[in-house]
Amino acid sequence: MARNVGFLILVIHALLLGLAAADWNILNQKKAKYGLQITLKNYCESWRMNVELHNIRDFDVVPEECVGYIGKYMTSTQYKVDSERTIDECTVYLSTNCGLKKDGTDAWIFDIDDTLLSTVPYYKKNGFGGKKLNSTCLEEWMQQAKAPALEHSLRLFNQLKGLGVQIILVSSRRECLRSATIDNLVDVGYHGWTSLILRGPDDENKDIQKYKADVRKQLISSGYRIWGILGDQWSSVEGLPTAKRTFKLPNPLYYVA
Amino acid sequence: MARNVGFLILVIHALLLGLAAADWNILNQKKAKYGLQITLKNYCESWRMNVELHNIRDFDVVPEECVGYIGKYMTSTQYKVDSERTIDECTVYLSTNCGLKKDGTDAWIFDIDDTLLSTVPYYKKNGFGGKKLNSTCLEEWMQQAKAPALEHSLRLFNQLKGLGVQIILVSSRRECLRSATIDNLVDVGYHGWTSLILRGPDDENKDIQKYKADVRKQLISSGYRIWGILGDQWSSVEGLPTAKRTFKLPNPLYYVA
Repeated sequence: MARNVGFLILVIHALLLGLAAADWNILNQKKAKYGLQITLKNYCESWRMNVELHNIRDFDVVPEECVGYIGKYMTSTQYKVDSERTIDECTVYLSTNCGLKKDGTDAWIFDIDDTLLSTVPYYKKNGFGGKKLNSTCLEEWMQQAKAPALEHSLRLFNQLKGLGVQIILVSSRRECLRSATIDNLVDVGYHGWTSLILRGPDDENKDIQKYKADVRKQLISSGYRIWGILGDQWSSVEGLPTAKRTFKLPNPLYYVA
Repeated sequence: MARNVGFLILVIHALLLGLAAADWNILNQKKAKYGLQITLKNYCESWRMNVELHNIRDFDVVPEECVGYIGKYMTSTQYKVDSERTIDECTVYLSTNCGLKKDGTDAWIFDIDDTLLSTVPYYKKNGFGGKKLNSTCLEEWMQQAKAPALEHSLRLFNQLKGLGVQIILVSSRRECLRSATIDNLVDVGYHGWTSLILRGPDDENKDIQKYKADVRKQLISSGYRIWGILGDQWSSVEGLPTAKRTFKLPNPLYYVA
């Protein structure tokens, strides 16, 4: 019996040693590979920066070790200031480089989620991007029409309205969310847009970048001049035809292709 | 006399009050306008983020109040980690999504400055982007051929060479810098590239984005498949024709249109 216990202890010891040898800590791996001593904050910040640089694409989830960091960022002053600066640049563009025609054909395109309305309250309750998206669950939340406005986007929206620019909302939300979306937008202060374009059954097989580019093609062929796009995803601003200028808000929570 | 002194004191007092009333502090202005209490770090970080998001374009200088912050970033571990992550994403792409033909036509394009070679030592001595660029002065520095390598870029360069990919260097440096550029590259470890393309007299009237797109057009028409571009400027990766994937390194020091 004592021999068996001794053997068991030996086995456990060997297993523990094995575990210690296989170091799963990403920071230690980096150090071993490149000799660079980095912190978890360094690592997660570089992840976020490379998402915004569009070097990291098609990610399904925020890396587990960075969920805390991303959650902190999305609820921080820094996220507000970063987004506000994006809006400020739209305003600078409108007042200096953009020769609006003022003939009813000037148009501006907005995304909805995390551009006009914030989904941060949803992600806050659902692991801050660390869990794979449950679309049913997200759509149920959207049906409640309780998403808050991004306040600086509302300011730009109203500025554009004041300039007589036609505001076109192009969202990857599905048609079944139309009524909840309108309620939500109006409730937090958005009104007076020209068109709200949502994904119909035909669009559901396209990737979002193609769907949005097709919408722009249609808008241009019906006579609109698209002076700008404001979106939080690269798929909202890339692809042809494009706008005269595009502006991307930060969003490291999720990726829409 | 006493009355004159009293009057003078009054005038100075009034002047000082006037100066206090006109608040030139950007942070106080933000607070007054949007009620958001932010630090200089918040402000400068949002400036840097919006440069990388390509919302801030065509800037001549780093904002004076952010020169310290940008200098700190460019000499920090964070800058190294951010750049390293960009290179890691190139490596992931090469090993998973990129179907190299291995027939001698596979090609990869690199920028030179702040992609293969670092100009940080120059900017360190010249106000970290806070002073308008003196091209003569920068070219004199480049003639010395003392720019250090970006070590992670060298790793990617060698990996591509190992895969048999043709390496094309496309730089906005002028032809007169050819010999210094070759010396510098070889000296820090880069060798075995296929072609080094610099700006000839005909290219000097084009903007850089057009010049680089024209080079790609030529490369494609001579049979190359451009699998990737690595650059530190949006003008290196935007414009048509493009590569199958593009990767942008961070660089908030200067903007090349």
